[in-house]
Amino acid sequence: MWGKRDDMVVHEREPFNAEPPPGVLADAPITPVEAFYSRNHGPVPGTDRDSWRLAVAGLVDRPLSLSLSDLRRDFEPCTLAVTLQCAGNRRAGMAAVREIPGEDPWGDGATSTAEWTGVRLADVLAAARPTGRAAHVAFEAVDVSPLARPAQPYGASIPFAKASAPEVLLAWAMNGRPLPAAHGAPLRVVVPGYIGARSVKWVRRVVVRAEPSDNYFQAVAYRLLPPDADPDRAGPGDGLSLGPIALNSAILRPADGTSVPPGRTTVRGYALAGEHRRVARVDLSADGGASWRQAELDPAAGAYTWQLWHADVTLPPASDVELIARAWDDTGALQPESPRALWNPKGYANNSWPRATIHTSPRP
Amino acid sequence: MWGKRDDMVVHEREPFNAEPPPGVLADAPITPVEAFYSRNHGPVPGTDRDSWRLAVAGLVDRPLSLSLSDLRRDFEPCTLAVTLQCAGNRRAGMAAVREIPGEDPWGDGATSTAEWTGVRLADVLAAARPTGRAAHVAFEAVDVSPLARPAQPYGASIPFAKASAPEVLLAWAMNGRPLPAAHGAPLRVVVPGYIGARSVKWVRRVVVRAEPSDNYFQAVAYRLLPPDADPDRAGPGDGLSLGPIALNSAILRPADGTSVPPGRTTVRGYALAGEHRRVARVDLSADGGASWRQAELDPAAGAYTWQLWHADVTLPPASDVELIARAWDDTGALQPESPRALWNPKGYANNSWPRATIHTSPRP
Repeated sequence: MWGKRDDMVVHEREPFNAEPPPGVLADAPITPVEAFYSRNHGPVPGTDRDSWRLAVAGLVDRPLSLSLSDLRRDFEPCTLAVTLQCAGNRRAGMAAVREIPGEDPWGDGATSTAEWTGVRLADVLAAARPTGRAAHVAFEAVDVSPLARPAQPYGASIPFAKASAPEVLLAWAMNGRPLPAAHGAPLRVVVPGYIGARSVKWVRRVVVRAEPSDNYFQAVAYRLLPPDADPDRAGPGDGLSLGPIALNSAILRPADGTSVPPGRTTVRGYALAGEHRRVARVDLSADGGASWRQAELDPAAGAYTWQLWHADVTLPPASDVELIARAWDDTGALQPESPRALWNPKGYANNSWPRATIHTSPRP
Repeated sequence: MWGKRDDMVVHEREPFNAEPPPGVLADAPITPVEAFYSRNHGPVPGTDRDSWRLAVAGLVDRPLSLSLSDLRRDFEPCTLAVTLQCAGNRRAGMAAVREIPGEDPWGDGATSTAEWTGVRLADVLAAARPTGRAAHVAFEAVDVSPLARPAQPYGASIPFAKASAPEVLLAWAMNGRPLPAAHGAPLRVVVPGYIGARSVKWVRRVVVRAEPSDNYFQAVAYRLLPPDADPDRAGPGDGLSLGPIALNSAILRPADGTSVPPGRTTVRGYALAGEHRRVARVDLSADGGASWRQAELDPAAGAYTWQLWHADVTLPPASDVELIARAWDDTGALQPESPRALWNPKGYANNSWPRATIHTSPRP
C-alpha cells in the first residue's frame, strides 16, 4: 500500500497512517522510503506534476505563481538529510498511563529520516519580497481532511524567522527519487526541527501573514492541552501550540516484548535533539535503572537528523530484563523520566525515557 | 561586602561567592545589584576605568585595541535585560542525592536578572574583520584563579555564531549604573542563554579562534561529567562542555522549610527556558504531585530573561505540605522530575522539579 513494506504497522488505511515494524529504523541512518512513516489527515490526493503551480501570496510585494520547472530553473537546488517526527510519536507509551481516545497509538516509528531535495523556502520568499508586516508563513495543501471541524484542506504555519532559515525546503525529491504520492508529490514543505505536522505535503499556496494560520491543524489541533482539558471543547488558541520538537529517543532493537538469547546483546536506538540542539549523550540501563552505561553515538547524517546509537549489554539467562534509555542534549538537558507527568488529552510529545522489557531464554 | 545585602548567603568570602537569601528574587523581575548573585573564581581585581583597553585579536584581519571611550564612540549602545544563571545553581538539591565535595552548595539564588548596557560584541568583531577560519571567540580576563590547574587568569569561549548574534554584549553598566567591581568593572561579557561562566567579567582580550578556548574553565571545568567519572582526573575534553542552559525553575516563596498560616497562600517562583526557547507553562502542586494547577506567568522583561510566576493555593492547618513546581518550554519539553538522574560529580545543571516543604501553623 502506497509503496510501503508489507509488514508496516497500519494504524489506519484511510487516512493512511502507518509506521515501520519495531526495530526496522535501526537498520540505516537514512530510512528507505518503503519504511518511512506515513501520517495523513485525509485521502492521498491525486496530483499532476506538469500542471502543478505553487502560489506565493499574502504580505508580499510580488506575488508569485511557480511551476515545478520555474522552481528548478530560478532557485538553487538543495539536498538536506532531515528527520521528521510526528507529534504523536510514542503515544502508545502515554496511552498506557491513561487512555487517549480517538488518536492512533503510534510506537517509536512515527519518526524517520530522508534526504530531501528541493529549493530553500527562504529563497522563494525573498523573490516574493515580503512586507515589513511578515511574521508567519502559512502552507495550504490540497488534501481535504474530514477530521477538521469543519472539514477543510490541510494547512499549517511556521514563524517567518524559521521560514527564512536556510534549512526549510520546498522539496520535490526524497532519497534521490521523485516524491512519492503518499509523501506529498509533487511538492511538499520540509521544516527541520519542527513536528512533522508543519512539513505540509501537496503544498500549493505559501501565504505570508501577520498571524499564524487559522487552519484547524494549526489553531486547534497539535496543541499540548493541560491534562484536565476536554479536547472536544478546546478552541483555537487553547494550550501550547507545538512547533519545535523536544529531545527524544527510542529503543529499537531488541524490541519491547521480544526474546533474545542470554549473553552479549547489542541494543540499538535513535536519539533526536530537536530545534537548535544536538544530542550529547545517551545512557542505557539493562537493570531497570539501577546502573547506566554510555551508548556509542553514530555520526549524524546532518545537522537536522537523529543519531542512531548502540550499546553492548550482557543479559542473564531466563530473565525479564528492563532496558531503559535516556538522552541528554548539549545544554545538559535530560529527557523527563516518566510519561505520567507528560500525559495530555491528545497524547502529543511523549519524550519520556524509553523502556523495553526483554525476555532472555534459558541457556541452550 | 562588595555592595551586597547584609543577609546574602555567602558560600565563600574569597573568592566571593554569594546568593540572595531565599525568596528575595521573587520581589522584582529585575534584580537589584545588591541582591544579584556573585560567582567568582579568584579575588575581585582592582581595575582602572580610564586606562582600560580591550584587545580584539586572533583570527582577525584588523586587530583592535579599544578604550572604553572608543567603545562608546565607535559602536551603537545597547541595553538588554538578561538573566544570568550559574551552572551550579540548585546544586544543593543535587548534593542531597549524593555528596559533591569541594563545590559550593548553591540554592535557587545563583540566578539573577539585570539590565545590561554596552555594545554588541558582534559589532566589535565585525570591525576587527574575522577571517574565514573564525569558529570560536575566547574571552580573557584579569582575575587570576587559584582554582585552575595551573593557576591562571579566568577565561572562556563561545561559538563564533553565538558571538555574532545581536544579544551578546560587552557591557559597562548594570541596571543603569556603572558596573560594580564585583560584577566585572569596567567591562564584562554578557552571553544571554549561556551558563554564567561564559559571561566573563573584567574582560581585556577577545580572541577569535578556530578552536574553543584552552583555558581551564572552558577545557576542564564546567563540563557535565558522567556520574562515575573522577573529577580530579578528568582532563580537557571529558564530558559535555556546558554552554547554552536548559529549562529550569525554582520555588522562591514561601521558602523551603518555612512556616506559613493555613489558608490561602500565594506561591512565587521563577522559570527560565534557556537558549532559543521560551517558558510556555508552569504547573504547581501543593500535595506532593497528586494534583497540579497552572501558575500565572508574569511577562518577561525581554527575550533572554526568566519569568516570575505565582499561583494561589489553599493550605490545610498544622500540616507539612510539599510544594512542587514544573516548567514546560515552547517545544513541549518538561523539566526532568528528579535530581537523582541528573547527578554528576561537579553538581552542574540541576534542573529537576523544584520542591519545597512548608509547615502550616494550627488555626489561630
